[in-house]
Amino acid sequence: MTLAAVADAALEQAREEAAEAVEAALDALLPETDGPEARLDEAMRYAALGGGKRLRAFLVMQSAALFAVSRTCAARVAAAVEMLHAYSLVHDDLPAMDNDDLRRGRPSTHKAFDEATAILAGDALQARAFEVLAEPDTHADPLARAELVQAFAAAAGPRGMVGGQMIDMLAEGRELGAPEVTRLQSMKTGRLIQFSAEAGAILGRAPPAQRQALFRFGRELGAAFQIADDLLDAEASTEQMGKTAGKDAAAGKATLVAILGPVRAREQATLLAGQAATHLEPFAERAHLLRALARFVVVRQA
Amino acid sequence: MTLAAVADAALEQAREEAAEAVEAALDALLPETDGPEARLDEAMRYAALGGGKRLRAFLVMQSAALFAVSRTCAARVAAAVEMLHAYSLVHDDLPAMDNDDLRRGRPSTHKAFDEATAILAGDALQARAFEVLAEPDTHADPLARAELVQAFAAAAGPRGMVGGQMIDMLAEGRELGAPEVTRLQSMKTGRLIQFSAEAGAILGRAPPAQRQALFRFGRELGAAFQIADDLLDAEASTEQMGKTAGKDAAAGKATLVAILGPVRAREQATLLAGQAATHLEPFAERAHLLRALARFVVVRQA
Repeated sequence: MTLAAVADAALEQAREEAAEAVEAALDALLPETDGPEARLDEAMRYAALGGGKRLRAFLVMQSAALFAVSRTCAARVAAAVEMLHAYSLVHDDLPAMDNDDLRRGRPSTHKAFDEATAILAGDALQARAFEVLAEPDTHADPLARAELVQAFAAAAGPRGMVGGQMIDMLAEGRELGAPEVTRLQSMKTGRLIQFSAEAGAILGRAPPAQRQALFRFGRELGAAFQIADDLLDAEASTEQMGKTAGKDAAAGKATLVAILGPVRAREQATLLAGQAATHLEPFAERAHLLRALARFVVVRQA
Repeated sequence: MTLAAVADAALEQAREEAAEAVEAALDALLPETDGPEARLDEAMRYAALGGGKRLRAFLVMQSAALFAVSRTCAARVAAAVEMLHAYSLVHDDLPAMDNDDLRRGRPSTHKAFDEATAILAGDALQARAFEVLAEPDTHADPLARAELVQAFAAAAGPRGMVGGQMIDMLAEGRELGAPEVTRLQSMKTGRLIQFSAEAGAILGRAPPAQRQALFRFGRELGAAFQIADDLLDAEASTEQMGKTAGKDAAAGKATLVAILGPVRAREQATLLAGQAATHLEPFAERAHLLRALARFVVVRQA
């Protein structure tokens, strides 16, 4: 095997391990019940378990590993991040939003259940994510827990994920330039990816410079990831994606792929992924899997 | 004036002061903007500012006053509680939920804006509420902040407010008994009222027994408040209520008023309010306004 192939194999194994760890954490943190709350619990599990690339979970697990944080604590934070991501997909798929019937190769939550249940399952996943971060099991130091909650809320709220989704909705059918698209995507998907990269430093009580290095890594990785996602949306089939493909163009949504064309967009993604990796220098060889991830996000096929 | 009239006047003044304090805090914490996020910010302000009884804010301010917590810190927690309450009303009013066009005497948020904006404004209000609690300005001790977030999330999530709303939706048109109705209402509205009463003790780093006394006060006060609300819904006009009156009966929703009849329901509310007051004994005369509130909630006319 070449060195690159060895790195890719190590990355794939680490990604599988992170996916398994977060799946187990989600299963424990979102238990099945048989009382009157059973339907809500079932919808929350449907939305959060058993799917997705778990990119955000992987970032939490790997950034935490840089600081020798326990895997149990890291997996709780990874689960909170995936709960928040899952809730955002449930709400984005609603008829009043993107009206999408397919998600992760299955009916979206409002199709599998109903709209009211989907709205409430999303709301409950957000609350539960915050609860998990604040619980003492996540970190012995309450300052770490409060900092996790604060950074997570900033990534989730009106200046982060939800604000980005609002701007995205308002932009449908309008012409946006590259700077506006970059800004909206950095809010809509970038901020939570940044938080995921930063989370390990918060858990590890890392010096501010290291926390900031991971924050910047997450910023450029997130931007590269988003362009690659838009390239896949434009090029791949619905079957490969597990969600409706080509829907950005159909909805008149502005993407960098539409603005720059696929060739320049791919160049831009590669450039950003390279810049992302430069922020990992303080961690030297310990960050080899995060470096491999930065290479991977721009060449992935699904 | 009689002693009761003096107490009522003091209560009214304290309620106005709490309403003003939380309004100012909400205005500062949810600023107006003129960038691309303007519409989301406007919808969040529309939902959270300028209305409501501010019962929850009053409970936070008064429980905090028992422990000499700064009014600035208490007002931030009160604002977070009112943000969460406002988001729950925005989502409950959506067409897929209770489909209600009127709230606080004005068009509900999805009528004043649109459904997508209402969903996102609710989502953003929830995230912002958690952010406010976790920020250092809320309390110098990170343990207090983490405890606030944890208790707040438990009140907001699948075993609290959202879980109660789900059970309420599922129960429409079905026969529920008094124990089931009591349980569902204790989740849907009771848990956040309990948190509001408990919040002062968390802010004041009060001994566990005092925190628990306020938690229990909140439990019975919340139950009494809910029965009084259902009595008003059955008896008052839409104009008096500022929201659609008589909608519980129209939707086939189970309430204790429907099960027990108005006379026994009112007796039950009075009994609960009296029980609530007994939990205030550790605070002696310092809790006189909370005692006055317990009397007031069962006789209020709006």
